[in-house]
Amino acid sequence: MVHISNRLHEAEKSQKPTFSFEFFPPKTAQGIQNLYDRMDRMHGFGPTYIDVTWGAGGRSAHLTCEMVKTAQTALGLETCMHLTCTDMPKSKIDEALKVAYASGCTNILALRGDPPREHDKWEATSGGFRYAKDLVRYIRQEYKDHFDIGVAGYSERCEDNEDVDQLVQHLKEKVDAGSTFVVTQMFYDVDLFLEWVRKCRQAGITVPIIPGIMPISTYAAFVRRANGPMRCHVPQTWLDAMEPIKNDDVEVREQGKNLVAEMCRKLLESGEIHHLHFHSYTMNLEKATRMVIEELGIMPDMESPIEKPLPWRQSLGLKRREENVRPIFWRNKTRSYVARTQDWDEFPNGRWGDSRSPAFGELDAYGIGLKGSNEHYRKLWGEPQAIKDISNLFVKYMEGKLDSLPWSEQPITMEANIIRDDLVELNRRGILTINSQPAVNGVKSSDKTHGWGPRNGYVYQKAYLEVLVSPELISEVITRIERDPDMTYYAVNKNADLKTNAPGDGPNAVTWGVFPGKEIVQPTIVETISFLAWKDEFFRLGQDWAECHTSASPTRYLIEDLMDTWYLVNIVHNDFHETRGIFHLFDELAVKDLDKPLHEVKDLPLRPKVNGSSLKKEVTFMNGDAHQEAPVAVNGN
Amino acid sequence: MVHISNRLHEAEKSQKPTFSFEFFPPKTAQGIQNLYDRMDRMHGFGPTYIDVTWGAGGRSAHLTCEMVKTAQTALGLETCMHLTCTDMPKSKIDEALKVAYASGCTNILALRGDPPREHDKWEATSGGFRYAKDLVRYIRQEYKDHFDIGVAGYSERCEDNEDVDQLVQHLKEKVDAGSTFVVTQMFYDVDLFLEWVRKCRQAGITVPIIPGIMPISTYAAFVRRANGPMRCHVPQTWLDAMEPIKNDDVEVREQGKNLVAEMCRKLLESGEIHHLHFHSYTMNLEKATRMVIEELGIMPDMESPIEKPLPWRQSLGLKRREENVRPIFWRNKTRSYVARTQDWDEFPNGRWGDSRSPAFGELDAYGIGLKGSNEHYRKLWGEPQAIKDISNLFVKYMEGKLDSLPWSEQPITMEANIIRDDLVELNRRGILTINSQPAVNGVKSSDKTHGWGPRNGYVYQKAYLEVLVSPELISEVITRIERDPDMTYYAVNKNADLKTNAPGDGPNAVTWGVFPGKEIVQPTIVETISFLAWKDEFFRLGQDWAECHTSASPTRYLIEDLMDTWYLVNIVHNDFHETRGIFHLFDELAVKDLDKPLHEVKDLPLRPKVNGSSLKKEVTFMNGDAHQEAPVAVNGN
Repeated sequence: MVHISNRLHEAEKSQKPTFSFEFFPPKTAQGIQNLYDRMDRMHGFGPTYIDVTWGAGGRSAHLTCEMVKTAQTALGLETCMHLTCTDMPKSKIDEALKVAYASGCTNILALRGDPPREHDKWEATSGGFRYAKDLVRYIRQEYKDHFDIGVAGYSERCEDNEDVDQLVQHLKEKVDAGSTFVVTQMFYDVDLFLEWVRKCRQAGITVPIIPGIMPISTYAAFVRRANGPMRCHVPQTWLDAMEPIKNDDVEVREQGKNLVAEMCRKLLESGEIHHLHFHSYTMNLEKATRMVIEELGIMPDMESPIEKPLPWRQSLGLKRREENVRPIFWRNKTRSYVARTQDWDEFPNGRWGDSRSPAFGELDAYGIGLKGSNEHYRKLWGEPQAIKDISNLFVKYMEGKLDSLPWSEQPITMEANIIRDDLVELNRRGILTINSQPAVNGVKSSDKTHGWGPRNGYVYQKAYLEVLVSPELISEVITRIERDPDMTYYAVNKNADLKTNAPGDGPNAVTWGVFPGKEIVQPTIVETISFLAWKDEFFRLGQDWAECHTSASPTRYLIEDLMDTWYLVNIVHNDFHETRGIFHLFDELAVKDLDKPLHEVKDLPLRPKVNGSSLKKEVTFMNGDAHQEAPVAVNGN
Repeated sequence: MVHISNRLHEAEKSQKPTFSFEFFPPKTAQGIQNLYDRMDRMHGFGPTYIDVTWGAGGRSAHLTCEMVKTAQTALGLETCMHLTCTDMPKSKIDEALKVAYASGCTNILALRGDPPREHDKWEATSGGFRYAKDLVRYIRQEYKDHFDIGVAGYSERCEDNEDVDQLVQHLKEKVDAGSTFVVTQMFYDVDLFLEWVRKCRQAGITVPIIPGIMPISTYAAFVRRANGPMRCHVPQTWLDAMEPIKNDDVEVREQGKNLVAEMCRKLLESGEIHHLHFHSYTMNLEKATRMVIEELGIMPDMESPIEKPLPWRQSLGLKRREENVRPIFWRNKTRSYVARTQDWDEFPNGRWGDSRSPAFGELDAYGIGLKGSNEHYRKLWGEPQAIKDISNLFVKYMEGKLDSLPWSEQPITMEANIIRDDLVELNRRGILTINSQPAVNGVKSSDKTHGWGPRNGYVYQKAYLEVLVSPELISEVITRIERDPDMTYYAVNKNADLKTNAPGDGPNAVTWGVFPGKEIVQPTIVETISFLAWKDEFFRLGQDWAECHTSASPTRYLIEDLMDTWYLVNIVHNDFHETRGIFHLFDELAVKDLDKPLHEVKDLPLRPKVNGSSLKKEVTFMNGDAHQEAPVAVNGN
């Protein structure tokens, strides 16, 4: 269990300031997708944790739970779930706690809740809780030490109370009820705040206090903070600094950054504060927050391998923290891997073990597939007429000029640099590269490009290449692979005709690391069962792409033919001293008639499309002579 | 399950002749120890399996079972247990089968049994079986396909039957009852034998037939074979060749080797025979058997890593075949490791896992300790008077001039060659080295010295050193280790005061291999719990050595003082690129007053020995100043 209060104690000990972000459930579906992307980006800033605020009432409360789960399991963000009590029946609270538990979330911020509009006074929902301290006590009683429980601190005022001493007393009661950290409302006056912290300490509140920081994105938002029910004192110097530039948004943000950064610096220098909590209510605040953090110079060095325990980002879902082995196939589709394995009872740790037991979830149950609109993808990837057009898309992706492909959610990584020319060259010749990694023969774990894991270690990789190979080439490619005792491969088509030379069903470790005082860590593998699960997803994504185009169009025909007849092949060069070993396999091989539309190549009329089903095709696996296509094309022969 | 018949089919396919040996339960305890040593040596010849003959009647039957268990689990020999039925009640047969099963044995030779002395006719024990075929049928029925079941073939005669055709018919019935291979009685006439094989094939016996081969060690034994109840035809050419040299034992063995080898060659060339089974009834036959095998040139190349799947010899005990991780500590005491882990429910495979679950057996329950007589060890290791004398013993061992030490059953291995000078130098200075391995940075798995595992792989080792360090040096040694971030260590004394800088309880892999299409294999580790188990054994063996000497003797006092006050320290250099890294730790360190008897060093009278208990001594762990001994001695300072 990771508890925020422990992390805060660690931060205090190491004297390295840390920070966290707060997110709230958006109103629209598009907003949710954007928010996940934003959370994903902000993971890169290295927050200690993130908050998800509680959206009281039906759908919104459900959304909070969903966001907690996504952040924790798919995005690998340590998450603190807000939970309010006055507007909630006990059964709803139980439900929310269950979801938090099942998501692997171990931190709750227990709140009284927004004041209900109809009443003047806070009242407990029937059977529910009246005060935050009741909720704290209840969670403690039900879940023992599972959850770290935070509470809100009001340093200047609460909605219905301006008696600071009484507020300190209330806070003391909440802490005594079992909470282990305090997050405060936003403020601008650092002296007032530190005075309040001293009062808390005098009152016997010893748990960590986290100041809530509100970056300044616009002048309007800035002055709004000086009023409103949660208004806080704005120092005259701040008003004086803002007044002359209030009509220049860029200047406001720059000045705001300076003021907030100055305030944060004072907080950190006080010795009382070691962690900053950034409210990020709106999209605009992402930029303002980033500016403050950069100004403070407290962004952790994310390139440093100390921050990267494994070569892929870990999920923090329930039972997943120990997970440290994954198939390589989903490297560019992490979220779908997490989704398809979410029902596993246990996750591989140290080794893949019996690959037959962890059954992958079915595609449909997890909503695998392209998520955007047909128009979006037609605009993004165009309307290819010939293999050459698809080949060009892949080349653009390899060159960093295209950010995604149906099988890759992210732009190509820096790691591919050393094999980029080879990848581009293969794709130019119509050998479409889906996934790859170069061989690495023991570089330090601190290596900027390939490093991961603890200090003073060495990391290794076997060269890996996953390619989509046309039926006219597959026979020659496999013949060449099988000639080399250092190569292992799996080849499969849509019909799941599998061919491999792997020695048994067991996994092949393709990434591993050797560290002081530890077992060998082997976080990435290639093996049969997961490849077949990936194969389903691969061909499904291709079909999704085809279906972005109208049913009788040449593009639809082209992509469907690709999915129906080409082979997905993964190749491992087992001698990790060989960097370019795999590419030699394809020397002088190229797809014929690259730039001819499919109906010309195959000399077929544009087929009629019936019921949207794919044209039936003869796909017999292998042996060269079983194909109706042209024989292997070998350039220069 | 490994079945002999499968191995025979493999041998037939690969066209590489294989062989096996037969052992019988000896009569004396010393005989048993000698036999185990012999079996251990003969493991080195690379037999496909070994037989243990059935010792009918009480103790002897029990001994067969014990031998099967030892061969299978401790010696890692694939074993076939003989089992006779006519002289056994069914309950005894059930018991024997149960023991075989529990030992991991998967092969049984089902026999009728020796003719009972009192009766003229074979008769079933009440409730037992009359014929071998009944026993075959019973085992098949009770254990399904668990056991491979062999039966005896009589190519010339049976004790009570010389009708070869009828014997073929009886054999057919035994095979039909469910047996899957045939082992024949010994013979000298290869033509008669091959004629019989043809008869068997004609009768529809298709299972592999294994000829029983009896090497010739003495003339007397040779001619005895021509008579007796199991007599076989001796070709005149053999008699003619033997007659002139019958009084020269050396000549007889040489000529016998030639005759038997010639016969074996004919058998193998016949195309019917691919495996030879050597009867090894007496100690003398070990040599004669070896001579024949060498003459035939069929000894497998045991240096080849194909024959060495892991760096240590695997146990073939029940549930142990998949075992592939062990602590390094028992490298020179394999049998005691196997003994102390025999009750484990499962064995580490792929990783050590939770090191707390596999509880090591207590020392006494497994008979750990020195097995020989006090005189034997006093003769072997002398009567050291000062540390210098012990240091000299260690130096002799490192130089290959002494075959064992209390903590090492075997002579030092070839692998130590590259660090031998360093080891000798340490021991000379009174830093006693117990166990070590040099660093290996990825040599081919076919490497003669360090290689193991499948072809085309690479193997690695971290440098490892286990030393016994005197209390005057321990503080400085640990200070030096802790200064180097690449070093991890455990230090412990007899009282189990443990000190370590290991990052957590988990194991440290010190030997691993990377192979085509496989997970990383990490067969040797260092970790806490097993080190503490080894520590108990280590100090116990030292105490056993002390007790070889009379209680008031200076030697006894010296060794007991060593056990009571010195520290057992293991050190791993985690950067496997560094071959000599560990040795620098001890630069300029040496034990003071190496050659003074202990009572002079400590300025004590020879202590009185009461009730054989050790002298009580103050052993406070560490910190340099807590010792009464002289401060750290640094040469040259």
